[in-house]
Amino acid sequence: MNKLKGAAILGQSGGPTSVINASAAGVFLQALKEENITRVYGAAHGIRGILNEEFYDINQEDVKELELLKTTPSSSIGSVRYKLKPLEEDDSEYRRLLEVFKKYNIRYFFYNGGNDSMDTCNKVSKFFKDSGYECYCMGVPKTIDNDLDLTDHCPGYASAAKYVATSIMEIKQDANVYDTPMVTIVEIMGRNAGWLTAASALASYKGNGPDLIYLPEVPFSLDKFYADVDRVYKENHGKVLVAVSEGVKTADGKYIPELLASNLAKDSFGHAQLGGTASVLAQKVKEKLNVKVRAIEFSLLQRCAQHLASKVDIEEAFEAGKIAVKEACKGTTDKMVGFKRHMENGKYKCEYVLFDLALVANTEKKVPLNWITPDHTGLTMDYINYALPLIQGDLKAPLEDGLPRFAKLKKVFVEKL
Amino acid sequence: MNKLKGAAILGQSGGPTSVINASAAGVFLQALKEENITRVYGAAHGIRGILNEEFYDINQEDVKELELLKTTPSSSIGSVRYKLKPLEEDDSEYRRLLEVFKKYNIRYFFYNGGNDSMDTCNKVSKFFKDSGYECYCMGVPKTIDNDLDLTDHCPGYASAAKYVATSIMEIKQDANVYDTPMVTIVEIMGRNAGWLTAASALASYKGNGPDLIYLPEVPFSLDKFYADVDRVYKENHGKVLVAVSEGVKTADGKYIPELLASNLAKDSFGHAQLGGTASVLAQKVKEKLNVKVRAIEFSLLQRCAQHLASKVDIEEAFEAGKIAVKEACKGTTDKMVGFKRHMENGKYKCEYVLFDLALVANTEKKVPLNWITPDHTGLTMDYINYALPLIQGDLKAPLEDGLPRFAKLKKVFVEKL
Repeated sequence: MNKLKGAAILGQSGGPTSVINASAAGVFLQALKEENITRVYGAAHGIRGILNEEFYDINQEDVKELELLKTTPSSSIGSVRYKLKPLEEDDSEYRRLLEVFKKYNIRYFFYNGGNDSMDTCNKVSKFFKDSGYECYCMGVPKTIDNDLDLTDHCPGYASAAKYVATSIMEIKQDANVYDTPMVTIVEIMGRNAGWLTAASALASYKGNGPDLIYLPEVPFSLDKFYADVDRVYKENHGKVLVAVSEGVKTADGKYIPELLASNLAKDSFGHAQLGGTASVLAQKVKEKLNVKVRAIEFSLLQRCAQHLASKVDIEEAFEAGKIAVKEACKGTTDKMVGFKRHMENGKYKCEYVLFDLALVANTEKKVPLNWITPDHTGLTMDYINYALPLIQGDLKAPLEDGLPRFAKLKKVFVEKL
Repeated sequence: MNKLKGAAILGQSGGPTSVINASAAGVFLQALKEENITRVYGAAHGIRGILNEEFYDINQEDVKELELLKTTPSSSIGSVRYKLKPLEEDDSEYRRLLEVFKKYNIRYFFYNGGNDSMDTCNKVSKFFKDSGYECYCMGVPKTIDNDLDLTDHCPGYASAAKYVATSIMEIKQDANVYDTPMVTIVEIMGRNAGWLTAASALASYKGNGPDLIYLPEVPFSLDKFYADVDRVYKENHGKVLVAVSEGVKTADGKYIPELLASNLAKDSFGHAQLGGTASVLAQKVKEKLNVKVRAIEFSLLQRCAQHLASKVDIEEAFEAGKIAVKEACKGTTDKMVGFKRHMENGKYKCEYVLFDLALVANTEKKVPLNWITPDHTGLTMDYINYALPLIQGDLKAPLEDGLPRFAKLKKVFVEKL
């Protein structure tokens, strides 16, 4: 058992999810119980909050509100998209972090995010170690993209997948309602990995899903797309439902919006800001096939629709946070809490395992190519069997006046030293 | 008591809702019990199904599946947007309807829809009466637009309102997550009446809603809009959440998308096909104020999100269908079932009342101007008190594999005579 006493801090990083706060609840509630942990802080906007010495005093929060974090979507203490510069280029931010950690005697660092965030956590951990500063650094995974390597799946994915599948089923009911032809194209998030778009196949499995599903794992051909739509249009009395990832690219590496506009905005991680894929495709189908087309973009809804969160997802996200704290207090460092799947007599069970941060940072796990049907417009039963256990159970925020009651944190800033 | 024996037919018309099938369940299950009613039919795609002699034999459906219609969104027997020509211009379709009704001895006609559909029901009823054909014609209201006159509210509205309020609360959680400025503009359905956009005020009432709400009831000024956004932007550290109706118009009568494009598509009722209001406004705000903006359109989701349906709404829609049948069998005709609100000791109670079809057809009830705040960017407590009782309770489709199990009708066509 580790005996190092000091404060703990949690940062939330990257795009929010329905369950990133469930992990925060796990971290906070466990940290408040640990003898080693003297104070519990929440960084305002991730790593930037630490650089700016802006963090909230979690010891002042009501436990009841911390419990409500389990069913509060998005990132309650604020998230950030911020990538530290490579140490060899510029070590000033690392030195600043060390200064802040020392000043507040922070000895337990928890970072909740995706690939980039695991990279940040790993870099910070290394720098502290090289500087001789004892600090236990643990990554807690989250990403609706489900693209973290090694772990079976990522917290946040299942809830977003449940939203995608349910909403597509409802859209299918609606889109078929008139006796006039209509091509409906739904755009789903996922920059490089098609996991979230794949979730629309769950709706098809239930008989209410897209006719055509396009993932970024395989090159997208406009000509094949026209031919696919035309075929379904003819077979299906003019009704076509398409699910497409925002990240599909042509064989020469162009995103769909680039086929119309030459410049794409970039976010601060240097990733292209996508969106508009469905509307560009809708416009192109309309021109080419002269049919009525509607584009729908799930936008933010798919990552914050807590009212459709998966109970399995919430519970796992909460556990991941708790385990990160327990492990750090035992002396574990430089690890990410991950999930291993066990199927026992057809029943799903999640085992919590630890992966080296260095191994998960900056790698992306994509949908296996052999889970994509040979015509590249659907998913095999391998995917369905993978995803179904994850979306089970409902656990939505308690209702007040018929509307969700989210956590209300006091968010008292820790006085700057 | 009416003794006329004959078949009954239900048509679904206009844009679907989360509860139009709940009314269908009410009509079908009640009609199957009535002695006067010899057969129960469902028109495929409303009035067009009758003109084409395409209707389903509801007597062949399983009662269990008809019960599931209560929690199945959209229009299970198919809807239509079709306006009969004025009788004085062309009576051929009326004569055709009469021919079909006579051929199948249809004596009970139920039409479920909004303003235009009540007009259709009224015209058909009049023609039958003038032709000496005894037939009991009843309107069952539905519209997410909530714009039918006389009735306190319309089935379908409350569920859509609950979706809007809940989703806006979730978006607010998400949109505030970074420490960088962001103007988020959410577009909500409603061609002329702002009822659905008003529902976003429920989120504001719960402390998680839009800063600015724009309804089509008052003229929209781009300059005032820029000033409003700029003010909130400065007051609120660059975070602005806007809810805007697709139907807002400038003082000279232009829809927002018309500010970019000169031609607007029209649907078959002759209504302009809107959409794109949020994205045009986002583009304009970006140009004018040079800030980061995101546009979100709820699109079809807001009218078919059964998973967020209001229990009150489902139960009232179901009752409205049942009562239409009971009344017709008593000899009532030419009426629409409507709702009257009673508040007893702060508890909401709905009384079912009958309105003349002629009075509700083709009139539109808008949000009262004195429910809109003087600065035209919010709603008063009058609206909140009006809407809150309607969105209470959850009643979502039973889950199967974690996903909704919607009704599966056999949809056996009645053999053409």
